[in-house]
Amino acid sequence: MLLERDLIQSVGFRNVREGDRITGFQLRLRMPSYRGMAASLIDGVAVRVGEIVDVPHDVPTWSFGGREYTLAELWESRDIRWQLDDAAVVTVPLEGGLPDGTHEVSIDLRLRMSYIPMEHQPSVFRATRHITLSPEAAGGPFKYGVSLYSYMGDYGTVLDLETTLASVADVGATGVEILGEGHVTGYPEPSTAWIDEWFRLLEKYRLEPTNYGSWIDTRLHPGRAMTAEEGAATLQRDLRLAKQLGFSFVRPKIGVVSSDLIPDPIWTESVERSLDLAAELDVVICPEIHSPTPIKHPVVDDYIALIERTGTKHFGLLLDTGIFQDRPIPLRAGETRETRPAFLDGIGVDPADIADIAKYVVFIQAKFHDIDENQHDQQIPWEPVLRALKDAGYAGYLSSEYEGEREPWRALEQVRRQHSLMRRIAGELA
Amino acid sequence: MLLERDLIQSVGFRNVREGDRITGFQLRLRMPSYRGMAASLIDGVAVRVGEIVDVPHDVPTWSFGGREYTLAELWESRDIRWQLDDAAVVTVPLEGGLPDGTHEVSIDLRLRMSYIPMEHQPSVFRATRHITLSPEAAGGPFKYGVSLYSYMGDYGTVLDLETTLASVADVGATGVEILGEGHVTGYPEPSTAWIDEWFRLLEKYRLEPTNYGSWIDTRLHPGRAMTAEEGAATLQRDLRLAKQLGFSFVRPKIGVVSSDLIPDPIWTESVERSLDLAAELDVVICPEIHSPTPIKHPVVDDYIALIERTGTKHFGLLLDTGIFQDRPIPLRAGETRETRPAFLDGIGVDPADIADIAKYVVFIQAKFHDIDENQHDQQIPWEPVLRALKDAGYAGYLSSEYEGEREPWRALEQVRRQHSLMRRIAGELA
Repeated sequence: MLLERDLIQSVGFRNVREGDRITGFQLRLRMPSYRGMAASLIDGVAVRVGEIVDVPHDVPTWSFGGREYTLAELWESRDIRWQLDDAAVVTVPLEGGLPDGTHEVSIDLRLRMSYIPMEHQPSVFRATRHITLSPEAAGGPFKYGVSLYSYMGDYGTVLDLETTLASVADVGATGVEILGEGHVTGYPEPSTAWIDEWFRLLEKYRLEPTNYGSWIDTRLHPGRAMTAEEGAATLQRDLRLAKQLGFSFVRPKIGVVSSDLIPDPIWTESVERSLDLAAELDVVICPEIHSPTPIKHPVVDDYIALIERTGTKHFGLLLDTGIFQDRPIPLRAGETRETRPAFLDGIGVDPADIADIAKYVVFIQAKFHDIDENQHDQQIPWEPVLRALKDAGYAGYLSSEYEGEREPWRALEQVRRQHSLMRRIAGELA
Repeated sequence: MLLERDLIQSVGFRNVREGDRITGFQLRLRMPSYRGMAASLIDGVAVRVGEIVDVPHDVPTWSFGGREYTLAELWESRDIRWQLDDAAVVTVPLEGGLPDGTHEVSIDLRLRMSYIPMEHQPSVFRATRHITLSPEAAGGPFKYGVSLYSYMGDYGTVLDLETTLASVADVGATGVEILGEGHVTGYPEPSTAWIDEWFRLLEKYRLEPTNYGSWIDTRLHPGRAMTAEEGAATLQRDLRLAKQLGFSFVRPKIGVVSSDLIPDPIWTESVERSLDLAAELDVVICPEIHSPTPIKHPVVDDYIALIERTGTKHFGLLLDTGIFQDRPIPLRAGETRETRPAFLDGIGVDPADIADIAKYVVFIQAKFHDIDENQHDQQIPWEPVLRALKDAGYAGYLSSEYEGEREPWRALEQVRRQHSLMRRIAGELA
C-alpha cells in the first residue's frame, strides 16, 4: 500500500457511525517526519473544516492498527507506533458528521522531537487541502464504479493494484473497470498467483468487476492488414480472460480506417464470429461511442444493425460521457486551438439523443476532466446527462474515467469529487 | 517495483559491455500510453545524448524479459509485450560507451496506435532529461553506499523497498544504510517474512547493510525524563535488531538538553551499559557529528573521552559532511535569513580538522543538498573533504544522505550525480 504525497490523504475522509448515529468524521494523515515514531511522541492535531468545525489539538482521537486512543492514552502508551509507511487515522467528534461534499480541511499537527532544542518544540506541521468526503447519498437508480484508466500515469508510479482498489472502494463504488493490457500483470497470461491476488482484493474491498477494456490492434504488424479471423482471435482471447477475472462486459477498441474514426471493416466479422463465445461466457461485447463520434452517426447505426440482424443479447453500446462535453478543455502549454483537434473543445451531443439508443446501452464510462472545489464540472453537464439516462431507464454503472491533468495523485481526489457530485445530482432528479 | 514518472528513467542509464569491450549504453523507458502493448506496435526510438551521439529511430535495440531484439524483429514478433508496469530497456550501440557524468538525453519514441487516424501516426513521444550514467570509476580508497534517508517523502509514496534497493545498486553502491524506525516494516519486531524479504533483496542487489539509524527519544513521555536505564534499553533493542538485519554500525540519535544541542547526560551511561552487548554483537555504536556541532566541540571531546576511558572498539564517531557546507542552502518560500537557523547557511568546518579525530571516525554520512547538471555541488566542497578523508587514512563508506528539495523522484537522480562526482574526485586525488 502506498500513501498520497500530501500529509492530508484524500482517501479515508469519511463520516463515522456508532450504530445508526453519525458521531464524527475521520481523516488519514501521512507521517511528516522521515521516520516512524512511538505514538507517545504525538502532541496532538488541531483540525478545521471550513466554517463547520474547528477543534484544538487535544480533541481528535487517534487510531493505529484499528484501535482508537485519546491523546492522553497515547502519551502513556509504550507499544503503539505511527509507522512511516502507515497513515494515522484521526477521528474528530461531530454529532451528525460532515455534509457530503468537498471541504477545505486544515491541520496543525504537533510532534515532539527529542533531538531539537526545547524552544523549537513541539515541531508543528501545517497543511490545508480541499478533499471530498466519501459520499453518503445513495445515488440511485445508478450503480457506481471506477475505471483504473482514471489513474493513467499514476498506475505503476504512485499507485499499485491494492492501493488503487482501496481508493475505489473508499468512494463507495461497488464496481471496478480495468484495461486488460494495462492492469493485468503478465497479460495475456497472468500467473495463478496474480489471479488469486485479484480475487482476494476484490473480496477485501467488496468490488465487482464490471467492464474490461481490450484492443483489436489492426495495425499490429507494419505493412500487413489484420484479417477478420485474427481480429476474432484477439477479441476471443480477451473475452476469455475477462470472464476468468469475473467481468461481465468487454469493450474492444477497434482500429480505424478514416479521419472520422470509421472502424476497420473487419470489426463486423470479428464480432459476429465471437458472439457464440460471448453467449457461452455470458459476457457482453460493447464498443464505445466516444467523442468525436456522436450518437447520431453511421458507426452507431452499424452497431445497432448488428444487434437487430443477429438478435444477440451479447453485444451492446457503451456510452462515453465525453460526447456531452459542452465547454473546452483548457489549452495546454504550447497548444493552440488551431493545432489541436477541434473535438477537444467539446462536441456537445444533446443528452436527449440518448433516448433514441437507450435500449442498446449497456454501460456508461463517466468521462470527465476537471471538477473544482465547489464541485462544478468544467466540461461535462452532469444534470442533463444523468436526467436523460434516468429518463431512458438506465440503471447500470456510471464508471469514472478521469482524463484531466496528469499531476501525480490528482486523479484520486478528482474521482472523489465526481462520485460525490453524481450521487448528489442523481438524488435531486425528480 | 515502481517506475519514475519521467518517460526517461534515471535508474538503468549505464554503459554495456561485451566481454572487455564497452559496446554501447542503455536507457530504461516508461510506457507513455495508458496501456501496455504488443512490441510489434513500437515504431522505434531516436536517441540523442548531448553532442556525443544522435541515432535515428531504427538503430537502438529493445530488451524485454532480458532478451534483446532489433526493431525489425519486434515488428515480426507475436508474443513480446511492453507491459504498462515494466520499463523497456533500449540499447544504443556506441563503441567505448559514454563517458562518466551527467548527460542531456533526448528521445523521440514512436508507437503505432490502431485507433488513431493514419495522418496522425505514428504517435510520437518526445522527452529530454539530464540523467547520470552509472559510474565506472573505482573511486578508491572509499566504499560507496546510500542511506534510505535520502528518499524522505518518496519512501512509501513513490518508492517501495525493492525499487529503492534496486536504485541503490544501480549507482554501483555496495552498502545500504537504513533508519530502523523508518524502513523496517513492523519495527521494532518485524515479521519473519519481512526479514526473509530483506535478506533476499540484499542478495539480489548485492548490497551490504552498513549503518542503522536509531533514536533515544528522551522526551518519550510528556513530563517525565528518561532514565539512563531506559536509554540503555532503547539502544540495546536497536543494537539487537540491527545485528539481526546484518548491520555493523548503529547511529543512536540522542535527545538534546540545550540550544546548542548538548546531548542529554544520560547518553554516557546509556552507551556504557551497552558496550558489552555491542562487543558481543560486534556492532559499533557511532553518534553523529552533525551541523551545527563542529569537530572542535565539547560534545565531540566527550565522545572521545568515553573511547579513551573505556578502551572500547565498539564506539566511534560518525561524520556528517553537512558540517563542511560552505555555501548557503537557498531560502525556501516564506523563509528569511532572520527566521531560519543560521547553520543552514553552512558552518564551514575546515576539512583539515578531520585529521585530529580521524582515528575515531568509523563512518561517513555524505550529506548533500543540490548537485547541478554539470555536477557542481552547490553546498559541499567535495574535493577538500575527500582529500582530507583520504589523507587521514579513511577507507570506509561514503553513504549518501540527500537532504535537498523533496520533489518526488528528485533524490534518485541527485544520488546518481553525487556518486558520479565523488568517484571522479576520489580518482583525481593524488
